Amino acid sequence: MDEVVVGIDIGGTVTKFGLVTKTGKVVLLDRMPTTGFDGFNDYFKTLVHKISVMTGKMSDRVTGIGIGAPMGNFLEGSIDMATNLGWGKKIMVARTFSEFFNKPAFLTNDATAAAIGEKTGGVAKNMDDFLVITLGTGLGCGIYVNGTVLHGKHGYAGELGHVIVDPKGRKCNCGRRGCLETYVSASGIMKSVRAFKNKKLFEGSVLHDRTAYPDSKAVARAAAAGDPLAEYVFEFTGKVLADALANIIAMFNPEAIILSGGLANAGNLLIDPLEQFLNQKVLTNLCGKTKIHISKLDSEKIAVLGAASYAWQMINDHSHSNSLMVC
Amino acid sequence: MDEVVVGIDIGGTVTKFGLVTKTGKVVLLDRMPTTGFDGFNDYFKTLVHKISVMTGKMSDRVTGIGIGAPMGNFLEGSIDMATNLGWGKKIMVARTFSEFFNKPAFLTNDATAAAIGEKTGGVAKNMDDFLVITLGTGLGCGIYVNGTVLHGKHGYAGELGHVIVDPKGRKCNCGRRGCLETYVSASGIMKSVRAFKNKKLFEGSVLHDRTAYPDSKAVARAAAAGDPLAEYVFEFTGKVLADALANIIAMFNPEAIILSGGLANAGNLLIDPLEQFLNQKVLTNLCGKTKIHISKLDSEKIAVLGAASYAWQMINDHSHSNSLMVC
Repeated sequence: MDEVVVGIDIGGTVTKFGLVTKTGKVVLLDRMPTTGFDGFNDYFKTLVHKISVMTGKMSDRVTGIGIGAPMGNFLEGSIDMATNLGWGKKIMVARTFSEFFNKPAFLTNDATAAAIGEKTGGVAKNMDDFLVITLGTGLGCGIYVNGTVLHGKHGYAGELGHVIVDPKGRKCNCGRRGCLETYVSASGIMKSVRAFKNKKLFEGSVLHDRTAYPDSKAVARAAAAGDPLAEYVFEFTGKVLADALANIIAMFNPEAIILSGGLANAGNLLIDPLEQFLNQKVLTNLCGKTKIHISKLDSEKIAVLGAASYAWQMINDHSHSNSLMVC
Repeated sequence: MDEVVVGIDIGGTVTKFGLVTKTGKVVLLDRMPTTGFDGFNDYFKTLVHKISVMTGKMSDRVTGIGIGAPMGNFLEGSIDMATNLGWGKKIMVARTFSEFFNKPAFLTNDATAAAIGEKTGGVAKNMDDFLVITLGTGLGCGIYVNGTVLHGKHGYAGELGHVIVDPKGRKCNCGRRGCLETYVSASGIMKSVRAFKNKKLFEGSVLHDRTAYPDSKAVARAAAAGDPLAEYVFEFTGKVLADALANIIAMFNPEAIILSGGLANAGNLLIDPLEQFLNQKVLTNLCGKTKIHISKLDSEKIAVLGAASYAWQMINDHSHSNSLMVC
């Protein structure tokens, strides 16, 4: 029987977890809420119970655990001040999992895990220079440069969600103003709805009914049905993202930027204005050189696959195992 | 006798060139203007004459040529639409040098050459993740990630000078508005002087005498002598750079950012406001993690050393020689 790794994706709203073989096959998959618990310990207790039920009789085939998390720090296996989770201080997540299961556990940024997923089994399979932008509750970014993951000196690289696009802009959970994720994310979409709904032009918008249109998915449905406020919100979001990506392209000159996560499912609603404004904004000699993709990987699986692939890489990569294995 | 490489730094105003040994010793150094010629061919004729005079009897010891240039494209050895040079279309610079001298010639971005110089013989010797920002006529940026140069998919990475910091801001030579180099560069300093000199507060500024204070060096002298407009211009420049670097630090989480080039010689005039605003702006968990350095390498030598070091790397690196050697 094949060995498996437990892949865990700790999202701002939902935690997904599953068992993944060395060849990248996701054999089991489940999910639970990330929020509504009394701190990390309460959350952890529920999650490991569910994982134990999932592994069941296969528990002796589990080789390790791979975790992707917002503000995940691969050097320490910790989540450091994850603003969207509200768990506060530094949580030594990898060590906690490793001690509970008595297996090696590895943690990285959730968006880095998604990038590893795209490199392992997605559109970036043959690419050396690309970025994956995860559009969930917040906005994350995983980066490959010269064929390797960009972690940065302290493991914090890729905080595109906290690149400031307007110094006088919207308040962010990080304590500053105008961070990209206050505009371009599921929560950013809802902030834009609130910001623009009182414009005279949008008086008749269906989005005034907050009960019927409570989240970004509902706003996407309204936009697809032609609601002018919802359409404007996606156009605005695409424009803000285009401005940010023009700068990212100038710095990284990547082969591709891949959008994944819930908001990326809005597809052309986001991509059309993004590409239109990007073509206007990008430096002339870089125009058309970076492809924009929507991830084709099942969004339920990608981050779990990426987290597990990261653990498989670490388990196999003896050159790194001394410094990075937490066990 | 030691073999040498000709290192050439094509700056927006001045071209520096010299002979550099394999161990990074700059044995001869000279300079000439970059501008004032009748196109690239006229410039090239003068430059190769001067280089031939410099090499003289040592010409048989010349192993190759390394060139750093703004908008230098290492993949093709070309300068592509170098907005500050005004040479227009794509110029196949490496091939032109290689054919003239009958030696292999290699070209890269001038700021990448500066970064290679810092890694070869400067403060970044033991660093794997750092950026070098060259503050000359324009603003360039060379990037190391995981110990290797970030060239990008098409060789254009590091265009920090054309990261847009204010979409409605100053007109840039690239045809867009609000690029960082319209604020943070020698020419940006002069634009700021013009932008602020008519404020009532600065009526008595010595900078109103354009003849006595014609360039950014003179503005730095005035600031050091306490002229309020000159001081304000440097404070403003430091603030704009701080905002940009807060975003760069969020994306790259580098160990250090090294400032080099003429404007970096302003030292504390630039560094003090930069660090003050950077501490306010950087994401909390990244605060204090990236060191800001002024290059300690002789600014006359650094880019020439870097360009030559790049050529030495390429000559020695057989794994790359097939695709990159132009000869």
